[in-house]
Amino acid sequence: MNVKVIATSSSLGLAARLSTLLGCSMIAVDEKVFPDGEKYVRVPHRLEGSTVVLVHSLYQPQDERFLQLLLAIDAAKGAGAERVIVVVPYVAYARQDKRFLEGEPISVKVIFKAIEAAGADALITVDLHRPSSLDEWLEIPHANVIPIDALIGYFRGRLSNPVVLAPDRGALHRAQLAAQLLGAQYDYLEKVRDRVTGEVKVVPKSLDVKGGDMLIVDDIISTGGTIAAASKSVLTEGARNVYAACTHALLVSGALDRLYAAGVREVVATDTVPSPVSKVSVAESLAKAVNEMLTTLSL
Amino acid sequence: MNVKVIATSSSLGLAARLSTLLGCSMIAVDEKVFPDGEKYVRVPHRLEGSTVVLVHSLYQPQDERFLQLLLAIDAAKGAGAERVIVVVPYVAYARQDKRFLEGEPISVKVIFKAIEAAGADALITVDLHRPSSLDEWLEIPHANVIPIDALIGYFRGRLSNPVVLAPDRGALHRAQLAAQLLGAQYDYLEKVRDRVTGEVKVVPKSLDVKGGDMLIVDDIISTGGTIAAASKSVLTEGARNVYAACTHALLVSGALDRLYAAGVREVVATDTVPSPVSKVSVAESLAKAVNEMLTTLSL
Repeated sequence: MNVKVIATSSSLGLAARLSTLLGCSMIAVDEKVFPDGEKYVRVPHRLEGSTVVLVHSLYQPQDERFLQLLLAIDAAKGAGAERVIVVVPYVAYARQDKRFLEGEPISVKVIFKAIEAAGADALITVDLHRPSSLDEWLEIPHANVIPIDALIGYFRGRLSNPVVLAPDRGALHRAQLAAQLLGAQYDYLEKVRDRVTGEVKVVPKSLDVKGGDMLIVDDIISTGGTIAAASKSVLTEGARNVYAACTHALLVSGALDRLYAAGVREVVATDTVPSPVSKVSVAESLAKAVNEMLTTLSL
Repeated sequence: MNVKVIATSSSLGLAARLSTLLGCSMIAVDEKVFPDGEKYVRVPHRLEGSTVVLVHSLYQPQDERFLQLLLAIDAAKGAGAERVIVVVPYVAYARQDKRFLEGEPISVKVIFKAIEAAGADALITVDLHRPSSLDEWLEIPHANVIPIDALIGYFRGRLSNPVVLAPDRGALHRAQLAAQLLGAQYDYLEKVRDRVTGEVKVVPKSLDVKGGDMLIVDDIISTGGTIAAASKSVLTEGARNVYAACTHALLVSGALDRLYAAGVREVVATDTVPSPVSKVSVAESLAKAVNEMLTTLSL
């Protein structure tokens, strides 16, 4: 099969790794911005008969990147691509996945519907906030990659008496997977108010933290507020070290400073969002998912 | 019929005028931005059984406004709206309406497909760069309003020996309409290089400008470069005054300063894009188009 990786500036490094792993060529799209702010992309090659793997992540400025993604899909189709497999390493708006209040939008639905309407033939995401959003809102084939092996592999042999912590009960499944890989215990964090001092602590639901290395695992670190509060609490309770791992390091509003100031020893993330702590790559997980998708599409 | 106008901050004034003309209530959506830059909208009313007229213009920052539009459409549907008529006074990306070069996207197609996929039941635009783009890329009912009466009405009785000029041959039809309304002559502007001095002038194809009031009419003023060059040329050739009229005043990169410095006496635009020169409203033209669309949808 004639497969080509197409990369935008949003995910150039990850796309290059992916094309190496897939053993195919990579084409970078031309990008510019008009004086009035409109984005422009152009695929500088004919793509007749190709299956295109378009890699484009939706981190900040997410709305501009979203437009670029839609334009790139249409440009690839217009350049003759037979099929476009869209890889979105980080999907913006994925947390607004239901109407929490009356009158709200389901933002992730709007994102997925637009990608499909632009001409995508398949969609691959990484550690989507709620993977079933894909089933709910897409007609095209789709897959969600959980790169927990790569992320947790980084910590293998580096922790002593490890305890894996989820920031809340809903994220417990990810912590459980990580704990299995490390042969560690796991728990989730809970806010507890001290009845005497009134102080709010963020501590594990049931495990003791004394002397252990805590690894807090989440899908997204945005402002880092929850993890910073948890770090302070468990260090006060006698934990030896606190580490934080996430798939998507958004790191807004000085998140890294906040985390280090709260005693977090190291923050590790993947390259779905380029960041100073993107120490592991999701390229291998993505290559596997792309190959599976190519098989699905050929059947 | 139970009709409600829904307004975003993008077009609050125009939506208010429109709701007055339609004789219905107006609801402003709640809007906010999350710390990571994601937009949020919420319709603070139930809309069961309503036909909603959602007014939202896509001027700069156009990509953020585009996301807000898609979210607002889904929010209105989620709040129970029976039908959503989307009014987009200014459509961003409308000038990239074909693949001028191989490998380019058709950007306006991507915009329209996403609006439709988000749940719009009809779309009304104002002076779209190429109105046939609507027929090409939309399945839903659509209409395009040309507010030339309002725009040119402003100049009635203010010009002496008026000549209406189109900035290029492609825009001649709009100049012709304006000229009929004013009882004026019309022509289009052409770049001419002086064979002796090498200087480039922008002058009318065939009409003489001496002593006349020139009214340059276009759909969009972006940087104003073409009109500024034309103003200098025709004033040098003996024109009495130069005026500029447009539907959409984007006015990027100091456009107004550039136009005034080039001798343009007055710039007039509509309120599709709020600007210091938005002296006339498209509300009446829109009210007519909305009423016609309500009839179409009821049949």
